[in-house]
Amino acid sequence: MFFIGDHKYRNQGAQPLTDSVYSKGRWMLNFKAGSLFPRTNMTNFTKLDDFLTRNRQQHLEQLFELLRIPSISADSTKSSDMDRAAHWVADRFRDAGLKTELIPGDGPALVYAETDPVPGKPVVLVYGHYDVQPADPIDLWKSPPFAPEIRDGNIYARGSTDDKGQMLTHVLSVLAWKACGEKLPLQVKFLIEGQEEQGSEVLEAKLPEIAKRLACDVIVISDSSQYAKGQPAITYGLRGIAYFELRVHGPKMDLHSGSFGGAVTNPALALARILTEIKTADGRIQLPGFYDSVVELEPSEREMWQSLGFSDDRFAESLGVDALTGESGYTTLERRWARPTFDVHGLLGGYQGEGGKTVIPSWNGAKISFRLVPNQDPKTVGEQLRRFIAEHTPPGVRVEVIDLHGGRGVVVNPDSKYMKGAVEAVEEGFGVKPVLIREGGSIPIVAQMVDALECDVLLIGWGLDDDGAHSPNEKFCLEDFYRGIRASSRLWHHLAR
Amino acid sequence: MFFIGDHKYRNQGAQPLTDSVYSKGRWMLNFKAGSLFPRTNMTNFTKLDDFLTRNRQQHLEQLFELLRIPSISADSTKSSDMDRAAHWVADRFRDAGLKTELIPGDGPALVYAETDPVPGKPVVLVYGHYDVQPADPIDLWKSPPFAPEIRDGNIYARGSTDDKGQMLTHVLSVLAWKACGEKLPLQVKFLIEGQEEQGSEVLEAKLPEIAKRLACDVIVISDSSQYAKGQPAITYGLRGIAYFELRVHGPKMDLHSGSFGGAVTNPALALARILTEIKTADGRIQLPGFYDSVVELEPSEREMWQSLGFSDDRFAESLGVDALTGESGYTTLERRWARPTFDVHGLLGGYQGEGGKTVIPSWNGAKISFRLVPNQDPKTVGEQLRRFIAEHTPPGVRVEVIDLHGGRGVVVNPDSKYMKGAVEAVEEGFGVKPVLIREGGSIPIVAQMVDALECDVLLIGWGLDDDGAHSPNEKFCLEDFYRGIRASSRLWHHLAR
Repeated sequence: MFFIGDHKYRNQGAQPLTDSVYSKGRWMLNFKAGSLFPRTNMTNFTKLDDFLTRNRQQHLEQLFELLRIPSISADSTKSSDMDRAAHWVADRFRDAGLKTELIPGDGPALVYAETDPVPGKPVVLVYGHYDVQPADPIDLWKSPPFAPEIRDGNIYARGSTDDKGQMLTHVLSVLAWKACGEKLPLQVKFLIEGQEEQGSEVLEAKLPEIAKRLACDVIVISDSSQYAKGQPAITYGLRGIAYFELRVHGPKMDLHSGSFGGAVTNPALALARILTEIKTADGRIQLPGFYDSVVELEPSEREMWQSLGFSDDRFAESLGVDALTGESGYTTLERRWARPTFDVHGLLGGYQGEGGKTVIPSWNGAKISFRLVPNQDPKTVGEQLRRFIAEHTPPGVRVEVIDLHGGRGVVVNPDSKYMKGAVEAVEEGFGVKPVLIREGGSIPIVAQMVDALECDVLLIGWGLDDDGAHSPNEKFCLEDFYRGIRASSRLWHHLAR
Repeated sequence: MFFIGDHKYRNQGAQPLTDSVYSKGRWMLNFKAGSLFPRTNMTNFTKLDDFLTRNRQQHLEQLFELLRIPSISADSTKSSDMDRAAHWVADRFRDAGLKTELIPGDGPALVYAETDPVPGKPVVLVYGHYDVQPADPIDLWKSPPFAPEIRDGNIYARGSTDDKGQMLTHVLSVLAWKACGEKLPLQVKFLIEGQEEQGSEVLEAKLPEIAKRLACDVIVISDSSQYAKGQPAITYGLRGIAYFELRVHGPKMDLHSGSFGGAVTNPALALARILTEIKTADGRIQLPGFYDSVVELEPSEREMWQSLGFSDDRFAESLGVDALTGESGYTTLERRWARPTFDVHGLLGGYQGEGGKTVIPSWNGAKISFRLVPNQDPKTVGEQLRRFIAEHTPPGVRVEVIDLHGGRGVVVNPDSKYMKGAVEAVEEGFGVKPVLIREGGSIPIVAQMVDALECDVLLIGWGLDDDGAHSPNEKFCLEDFYRGIRASSRLWHHLAR
């Protein structure tokens, strides 16, 4: 059901999706009219709703417990915290009587759990992650990243929105069904991993071995954003990513820039030149072949996003920038959701302390990534990058390209039968009908899981764009946490129908 | 006597030094023939030489004591170590009965000391510094930077060559004269400061107030290198410097590069573009007006350096680079000693930890400097840089330019009468006649002191180019330490004649 997983659309260059349903504007009609989705009879949910209302404080305390564990997958000194987080999640499942297992691998363990099978009904696999991004720059946090607190109706902590808070809504909703003594109308499986922020290597390696256990009809993922505050969304596309570290090596030791300056290639300047050559000032990436396999936006899609009334001015103001920039010929939403791009995440090397030190560094580096769209392949982009750098390395330095992680982009079929159930559940949880959007971020493992399990997927995110998912002061709206649990509790019902 | 301090040559653009002695090749003759400098009668020095030989171990121990103090002027947490170093130097002078004073200022104290006046004889001012460069990257040191040790005939420690070891040769030689009960043939004053590596702000501020106390005929500085191992040199030119920190500010917080990538200007890429635009691939600096006041090399000077037999291949090999690069039309020595240049010393901002973090940093920065030659002025270069950046800042970011430090370049008159005495002293200390070179490094305060004191200057360095002055594993040749003390002990005699 993923276009990227469909042989028809893979590796065919920039061929438009002309015979796809989504090129015919049908979903737009659905989204606008809303007539295809009759409202549910809610009388069966009184008991469940009461339970959720009574347990708000307890649910929050459980989230706080998990948020207090600094499970930073990028930081190798945090491996015992990774273990603690994995066990914490597993213990919740065990406490509720789910068949639970920690699947070990070469890295953080996978947490797997399942409710009882329900013959004749779909099987849902909830995917989420218990690892979080690093917390630096730590001095910009108003409250410590791993000491969650509520301010202005938001939960502030690293991982609150990405993804502990969102992931937990599904765990708590299943636990609520069990606690109320209700039989779940379908089987729910959980796969909660600990390496999403670092490329899901353990899951990728284990996938063939555990595919049978994970077998399902639809994967449910809450690791994305609503369109705006008060306007929930269902995300039908994600970008992919190809992440690298560049290291430009110059002289074998740091040199005094007075005695040597002017006679050797400065590694930082060589790096700057290479980075500048990768992307033009008007946002076009210069790696030969980079755009060959990019699937272009459909006119109907551009039209639909136009109708969302996105304001460039308000967006720029919210980010504190005086101008938005990007690839010529595309709107801001198109640039963020459906066009590939190139970014630098950090600069490395040389003197970084107070005051001045007059050295020519022996090396400088950069953390960089390309965001990809269907049908770009991260491995191909890596090869294109290596060729480009080989041709653009100035004399006097040597450039090392280190692969960090990668994953393909995905576009979900909006006509999926599960999409209808999801729209109803979200509307009942949030009180507002969701819109259909894409998201610029990546969940690299998604395309691989869909390929391996041959299933459908639902990306229903409870976050907000300004949650600061990878920034200081990450937050998650407290009410959206509760609405997410409620929507999730309805989801099992609607997907089972 | 500094061309840069001479109104004839200041602020006249690129006017060649046609009426200078050094444009007529005379010194080259002197250097080659050596006939102008008759050898000294050495019989008076037996007692002094014996003393120096007997006290080698004690002198080394004294240097080690000073090297153990981590007096890093760039590091504000090291202010008590700065104090300790200043007092250690002052105590040596006091122990030997010199009139000694710590001159406080807005930063590390100046250490001043003087021997008794000798009427009718020149007054010498020894300038040196007790502060050192930061020691990072600390993990590249084979022995701890502030635990000096001898390996392969070298003293390894931060500050060994720059400048504690070199500076101490003059202190110890004056102390040796006193210890031997000899009356110094001229008055020696010492000014040992603690901010040379950070732009000498205290000294600069105090200079007008203390100029009378510092009054002298010639300043002696040992803070540079010999031409090569076994070939001492007298340095007649230094480059100036203009050092800045650039900070490129983008969005007000770090952004998730998935959700936002492609729609905002990446501060690291904006920085890379600006750095790349400052200097062309063939080494020309693009700030308008940058070369207007540069004094071009004289043909005789180029010829003299040509005769030094410098090997590009051996140089490149010693640095571990496969090619030398730089400004078109100039040799490596010319690029290093007499041409301005632009370098980056460190890159700042964004994610610098292990693995990958997918943020668009809210800011990135760079430590940068321009090395200057006569008659460039660091303030003018700062204005040129600010104008250039204002015109080259991409939309969506704001660039901050922070002044760190600056100083003009100098070229010394090689016909100075003190030069002859210095050549003799160096030859007697090292057993080899020195050659005349320039040095690419900067001692920013030198031009200002010469202007303020209206005196001559001698740059006689005992270091070596591969000492790693600002690098890990900084060293100073043990025998050159002893030879330097011996040369210094003769210097007072030859300058007094």
